[in-house]
Amino acid sequence: MIDATHDPKLTSWVANANDHADFPVQNLPLGLFSPANEAPRPGTAIGDHIIEWQALVAAGLRLDSPTMEAVLATPALRKSVRQQLSNLLSDPQYREAAEPYLHAAADCTLHLPTRIGDYTDFYAGIHHAVTVGKLFRPDNPLLPNYKHVPIGYHGRASSIRPSGAPVIRPKGQTKAPDAEAPSFGPSKRLDFELELGIWIGPGNDLGQPIDIAQAADHIAGYCLLNDWSARDFQAWEYQPLGPFLAKNFMTTISPWIITPEALAPFRLAQAPRPEGDPKPLPYLWDAADQAAGALKLSLEVLIETAGMRAQNLPPFALSRSEARHMYWTPSQLLTHHASNGCNLQTGDLLGTGTISGPAPDSAGSLLELSEGGKKPVTLPSNETRSFLEDGDALILRAYAEADGFVRIGFGDCRGRILPAG
Amino acid sequence: MIDATHDPKLTSWVANANDHADFPVQNLPLGLFSPANEAPRPGTAIGDHIIEWQALVAAGLRLDSPTMEAVLATPALRKSVRQQLSNLLSDPQYREAAEPYLHAAADCTLHLPTRIGDYTDFYAGIHHAVTVGKLFRPDNPLLPNYKHVPIGYHGRASSIRPSGAPVIRPKGQTKAPDAEAPSFGPSKRLDFELELGIWIGPGNDLGQPIDIAQAADHIAGYCLLNDWSARDFQAWEYQPLGPFLAKNFMTTISPWIITPEALAPFRLAQAPRPEGDPKPLPYLWDAADQAAGALKLSLEVLIETAGMRAQNLPPFALSRSEARHMYWTPSQLLTHHASNGCNLQTGDLLGTGTISGPAPDSAGSLLELSEGGKKPVTLPSNETRSFLEDGDALILRAYAEADGFVRIGFGDCRGRILPAG
Repeated sequence: MIDATHDPKLTSWVANANDHADFPVQNLPLGLFSPANEAPRPGTAIGDHIIEWQALVAAGLRLDSPTMEAVLATPALRKSVRQQLSNLLSDPQYREAAEPYLHAAADCTLHLPTRIGDYTDFYAGIHHAVTVGKLFRPDNPLLPNYKHVPIGYHGRASSIRPSGAPVIRPKGQTKAPDAEAPSFGPSKRLDFELELGIWIGPGNDLGQPIDIAQAADHIAGYCLLNDWSARDFQAWEYQPLGPFLAKNFMTTISPWIITPEALAPFRLAQAPRPEGDPKPLPYLWDAADQAAGALKLSLEVLIETAGMRAQNLPPFALSRSEARHMYWTPSQLLTHHASNGCNLQTGDLLGTGTISGPAPDSAGSLLELSEGGKKPVTLPSNETRSFLEDGDALILRAYAEADGFVRIGFGDCRGRILPAG
Repeated sequence: MIDATHDPKLTSWVANANDHADFPVQNLPLGLFSPANEAPRPGTAIGDHIIEWQALVAAGLRLDSPTMEAVLATPALRKSVRQQLSNLLSDPQYREAAEPYLHAAADCTLHLPTRIGDYTDFYAGIHHAVTVGKLFRPDNPLLPNYKHVPIGYHGRASSIRPSGAPVIRPKGQTKAPDAEAPSFGPSKRLDFELELGIWIGPGNDLGQPIDIAQAADHIAGYCLLNDWSARDFQAWEYQPLGPFLAKNFMTTISPWIITPEALAPFRLAQAPRPEGDPKPLPYLWDAADQAAGALKLSLEVLIETAGMRAQNLPPFALSRSEARHMYWTPSQLLTHHASNGCNLQTGDLLGTGTISGPAPDSAGSLLELSEGGKKPVTLPSNETRSFLEDGDALILRAYAEADGFVRIGFGDCRGRILPAG
């Protein structure tokens, strides 16, 4: 629902918040942060500052400061806190009471916003599925189940880290097709994957599926997600049970939860499925979900190598894509996940899968951009990349724009590769 | 290490503990339980009773009662509590102080012993891998990676339940090979899988692998694990990313953690790999791990149908197997898991994969026992089973026997199928 919190004329008394590329007063994301050397607490990014939710109490707008878990689990509370934060940060009368709770983001540490119980990764980017499928099966890139089943698998919750955490190049087993035996060592085909993360709000009890018409009520928000992947491990280990050590050494997410409320103005008419594509089974089909439309989100992947830093070159855009390239809606992913009675819990995280666009320069991984390593990408530093090198920093970004609304963004999802230990 | 706690002459003052099939004073498993209508607390099964750890304090053997998390995370504490419980329950001088903390197991509720962070399922039963592989690929049953890589994948932590919790038949997508389109409905090929669970004790930091020589120090104990599987969902969904909704609707475990100390007397000389099998890569090979030998554990699968209950027939043994049929040791599974730097955490659970024996009647799933449904199993009630029917109860059991030692067991891992909702 679009309301006064989205009004483009709304401004904040916080310096630099107005016209901030990611965090104007129309965004109001949820996060967990520590001011320098202090304990973690929930807060909201505003411009290049962070406001503690405790400020709502200091300003007399709330009797108590809610926990992150309560806000995620309770959509009405999440919406009420948004409205209160909008008032707090836009109305100068609250400035004096709130300012002691305002911190320069540069002085703070961002944490994972909540304890992640289970993490599931989907495969909803159809252009990624086709391009990667072509590398393995040129004649039959898309498996027969793809347009019927929102394909997904369980990932590792313990190794999810917030933006900025170092990424140690993993060691593992590989076997080149022409090698006699496998060997063990640092990955030579380390890659990124451009994904969105979907945060679960209210959960469901074991054995109780979630109807597609109610699925949106179970989504607390979104983030960026980099599903770092060791392609050489993946090729050797993934049959028959799927990716394991190729993925679970690390997953990086952007630490701010961008709420469904913040994203309400940014929707597209759902891209119709290509003619001839099967209509999803009834449990995955809801007219309102289709009518709500895909998220209107622009996605970017930037790289910054040690060589580029030495030449003072800015990060280089490897790829630009859009959230609309998902074949399944977030509600379809969630409903499918719970359709067998599997219980989702508050704070669980779903990855969408790599969101590549149809064009070669809109691919969400180096595997695709370099065509499996055959066509290295040339960077402004005249370096080339088939896969990631030590010292490379990878930055994912997302932002939403629409006529008549203020642009909002997700904040960076960044990780730099360290050499294998 | 075998010590005085294993002495076969040791007896307990608790009625029925001596000669108990599972829980004599030589076992002393770890669990979390509630006496009738009371709060959960840690305790230990002794005969058909449960003793609260608080009894150690009441008897003056400890200053404070440890938490389950501390015992799992700290091998020295786990071993010390074992020694103290052995004294408490065998020496009559402690009876008066301890008895207020002793509860009839029949009056108690058993819980999961700890919060499970991440759950990983392996595929270490080579006879299962061969038999199932033959159903899909008659000419090439075992994939080329099997004897090099301890194959595993991530499972769902949220839907793990202790023995006795009902198992609701899941709904899901299936597509028969000759059907034009998939359909959605209750699984028609619901199966069990006979596995062991491995509880992680001390964890490792992200990016810090666990050396194979230290791996055993990270294992806090074992349980039985039933990896319920909807074979019809699995066949349609599992490519290319592995099993998902076919598995994550429910996993049942036996609630008692059987410690490495309890199992110390029950080891076999490691079954040598068949001649010609590749030697594992150095990171997976430790002479001491090999010399310690496989767990000497007998495994049983029993079924009890509604028809059998109506005829007062006892549960029927569908299958008998042994833990030694694992191709990889628990230390190898754990070291492989952490070899890329993936961080294991205290309370994580690893499944071994289905532990089938080489003989047809030692298979750990109905998929194998009925040859993919082609040869239904006949039960004493004259019913037949290709897969599980509503009302069927499935019971997994494990016990260890060795000359000169008292038999110990794991307690039941039981679940009964309820109709789809």
